[in-house]
Amino acid sequence: MDQLKNLIESIITRVNVNLHEFVDVGPHLRTIVSQENLSSFYAFYGLTPTHPLHFKFSESCLSGTYFLGKCEVTRSVLYKSDIRGDELKRKGDVVKFEDMELKLYNDEFIAIRDSFLIKTLVHNKSHDPENLEKFAIRNTVALHWANIHGAPMDGCFLEPFATVDLTSAHNCAFGTHSYVQAGELSHTYVEPGRIWVKAEGAFEFDYKFPREILDKYVKYEPGKPPTGKMLDYVEERKADFIPIYSSVTQETQLNVPGSASLSPYAVVKGNCSVDENVLVCQRAYLEEASLGQGANAQENCYIVHSRLDGMNVTAHGGKIIHAHCGPNCFVGFNAFVHGTPENPVQVGKGCIIMPHTIIDADEPLEIPDGTLVWGFVGSKADLERNSIAISRLKEFSGETTFGDMSFSGSGKAFVDAFAHRIQHILEENGAYFESGDNGIGHAQQNNEMSFNIVQPYPDGPLKGLYPTVEISPAHLDMF
Amino acid sequence: MDQLKNLIESIITRVNVNLHEFVDVGPHLRTIVSQENLSSFYAFYGLTPTHPLHFKFSESCLSGTYFLGKCEVTRSVLYKSDIRGDELKRKGDVVKFEDMELKLYNDEFIAIRDSFLIKTLVHNKSHDPENLEKFAIRNTVALHWANIHGAPMDGCFLEPFATVDLTSAHNCAFGTHSYVQAGELSHTYVEPGRIWVKAEGAFEFDYKFPREILDKYVKYEPGKPPTGKMLDYVEERKADFIPIYSSVTQETQLNVPGSASLSPYAVVKGNCSVDENVLVCQRAYLEEASLGQGANAQENCYIVHSRLDGMNVTAHGGKIIHAHCGPNCFVGFNAFVHGTPENPVQVGKGCIIMPHTIIDADEPLEIPDGTLVWGFVGSKADLERNSIAISRLKEFSGETTFGDMSFSGSGKAFVDAFAHRIQHILEENGAYFESGDNGIGHAQQNNEMSFNIVQPYPDGPLKGLYPTVEISPAHLDMF
Repeated sequence: MDQLKNLIESIITRVNVNLHEFVDVGPHLRTIVSQENLSSFYAFYGLTPTHPLHFKFSESCLSGTYFLGKCEVTRSVLYKSDIRGDELKRKGDVVKFEDMELKLYNDEFIAIRDSFLIKTLVHNKSHDPENLEKFAIRNTVALHWANIHGAPMDGCFLEPFATVDLTSAHNCAFGTHSYVQAGELSHTYVEPGRIWVKAEGAFEFDYKFPREILDKYVKYEPGKPPTGKMLDYVEERKADFIPIYSSVTQETQLNVPGSASLSPYAVVKGNCSVDENVLVCQRAYLEEASLGQGANAQENCYIVHSRLDGMNVTAHGGKIIHAHCGPNCFVGFNAFVHGTPENPVQVGKGCIIMPHTIIDADEPLEIPDGTLVWGFVGSKADLERNSIAISRLKEFSGETTFGDMSFSGSGKAFVDAFAHRIQHILEENGAYFESGDNGIGHAQQNNEMSFNIVQPYPDGPLKGLYPTVEISPAHLDMF
Repeated sequence: MDQLKNLIESIITRVNVNLHEFVDVGPHLRTIVSQENLSSFYAFYGLTPTHPLHFKFSESCLSGTYFLGKCEVTRSVLYKSDIRGDELKRKGDVVKFEDMELKLYNDEFIAIRDSFLIKTLVHNKSHDPENLEKFAIRNTVALHWANIHGAPMDGCFLEPFATVDLTSAHNCAFGTHSYVQAGELSHTYVEPGRIWVKAEGAFEFDYKFPREILDKYVKYEPGKPPTGKMLDYVEERKADFIPIYSSVTQETQLNVPGSASLSPYAVVKGNCSVDENVLVCQRAYLEEASLGQGANAQENCYIVHSRLDGMNVTAHGGKIIHAHCGPNCFVGFNAFVHGTPENPVQVGKGCIIMPHTIIDADEPLEIPDGTLVWGFVGSKADLERNSIAISRLKEFSGETTFGDMSFSGSGKAFVDAFAHRIQHILEENGAYFESGDNGIGHAQQNNEMSFNIVQPYPDGPLKGLYPTVEISPAHLDMF
């Protein structure tokens, strides 16, 4: 294990150079995952006929991590993370910046270096016009169930359940269960439970979970895995993944239409159904779940005793339990929509459940069509306070508070940005696929995927480290 | 599938340039394995703390093939083969040639190029002093259960069950179930069923199976998988391997001593036992088998309802069924020692069952201690004819026939060469291991092995081809 220990110390030093104003990441990292666990799991990467392919791993531990698309990992520890390079920009793509048009010389790739990611999702692409071909994550630490989404990182620390979305970040710390979408950030500390969406000159949305509520659902003490009700929910279902990871190939009992895809690394329990153009990603969990046409369940989503009517987006880490979602609902990153058989949750058509929202129903809840919901909702009274009709928000302009959330700027710009984004996600996921290349997206492209498995050195001083591996395409025109 | 088809045609052309005097390999290869099978199985390579590591695969199909040690594969189809680079020479090793001493500049590696190998074992190292650092297999076709053992090949064709052992071969064809150990061969056709051991200026052993007997046990018609009693035996047990290949990791019920190794890719059925220093390789099959101290079962060995008393070598493809082997027995490549409950086979202490020997007992057979057996043995009368006391052979010098075998040269040189070889195999396998590095060999070094899995493109024009993969060691002193 000596070399693995040395690698971890090396990462700590690199990250601390960036973050010394906020935190020493050493006490956070040294004990949080046992060396035994870091050496016990294989890494796996998806191979399809359609995704650009280039993996290069060196001097790293990749325990339990999944890769797709073009990725390079150097001197890093990735533990049970998902590095999804299926929305990266491609050679020849044109990016607009102000009045300039920039053309990509090469396919973009994800480059992770001197970083430690635990159960973290990395997805989307870099939105930094200064770095078009490289989605870089450098000198960065992300803990359990963090999301790094279209967010290049340089010297950052994400506590458990933190999401950084479409934001280039440099020397920032993101507290537990915080959500940020702010374009660009540097030398900023985002407090635990803060939900912050800001478009410079257009709008700003700000909410902060009360500390005692946050602690009940997700609580983090340095160096220990997080605890709380959301964690318990996940931990209780962990064993269902074991048979899946033990097999090289899976058979499913589920009838999956040709236009849909169900990852063999997803759990399917009880009576489930998936309709045309549905996407179910690796590490999703379905139990007594019905997914209507064009609906999706991303990584770390739990859809349990629930029905999605169609064209529903469930973003990475979204959990929907004993709930019924009408068509075109959006449930954001790490949202926890937790009904029970006695207190089910009804989400109306076209609702937006903001990222990180915690709905934990103490009584049956009905969310009217076209509602935006945020923050903590346990009762009808909470719902009243922490929600607004989207049509009403759209008409607002200025500065105010809605319930516990403060808002400034143009409601219309905020709503339009969301609507546009949801539309884009549905397109990317292949929800509108008809035939041929018409509307093709992840649901169709993940359909034919094989998985390659990389294991660490089983013993000796390199135990837990992976050999240097490079994988590139077979030549198409070699013969 | 287009590219896979093109690859096969490209190999056919290359091999035919070498072999046009003997054979057109096209009709042999085009239909022998379905394109579907070539695209269905993963390749796997072993990773340990002790074996030198470097794999480079390109423009190839590796369906179901196992790799260990340093290997390069280019423009080749390897189907369910074993490429075992654990006895390759290492940097700094000194090879003697006549009165010269040659020191290796680099680790030796196996280089396979423009070749098509089916269920073939490649093992040992090049004995060609002109190519010390490269064990090359080029423009070569080998069919089911062939063995390429310490035998660099350039433009060769091996029919099913053929073994080329410690022989550099150039433009040669080896018939079904032929065995050759001849140092160097070129432009030679070895007839089916010929067992030929020759050491220039020392001795020559020559036997040929009667055609009708050979056909009963292994019969080959161009372009079709081989048939016959030996094949039936293997085919009937094929399904037992399926669960093994479906799992990433195996648990065994067997109590394996710390000094022994049992590959997770071996079948263990019924009541089996393995003693100290035992080596059981991938694709070995044990059923009601007892392996005494230092015994081994190599690739494609079947040890069924049998007992090996200790220090037994069962070479690649050897099958021992309803038999009891006394200590220090040697059962050669592809030998078929087939007793039944009614007609068991008793092999005495220190016997040598020559490679490719077929013992198919019609009556109970007892082979006395210290006997050399060859060819076909169905009855006591056959055994009388096709065996000799090793002590008697050792005293012979000249030219004669023993039963159906012709022998010339020094019996002592022949016996000594065999004894020396068996000793060497036991050492390599770790049969004499005591503690620390004392006598360490494969049995101990394979003990801690993890397996990496490479899958082919699942669809599209590259279906069945593997991506370009390069795997090299993690740096030991990076931090």
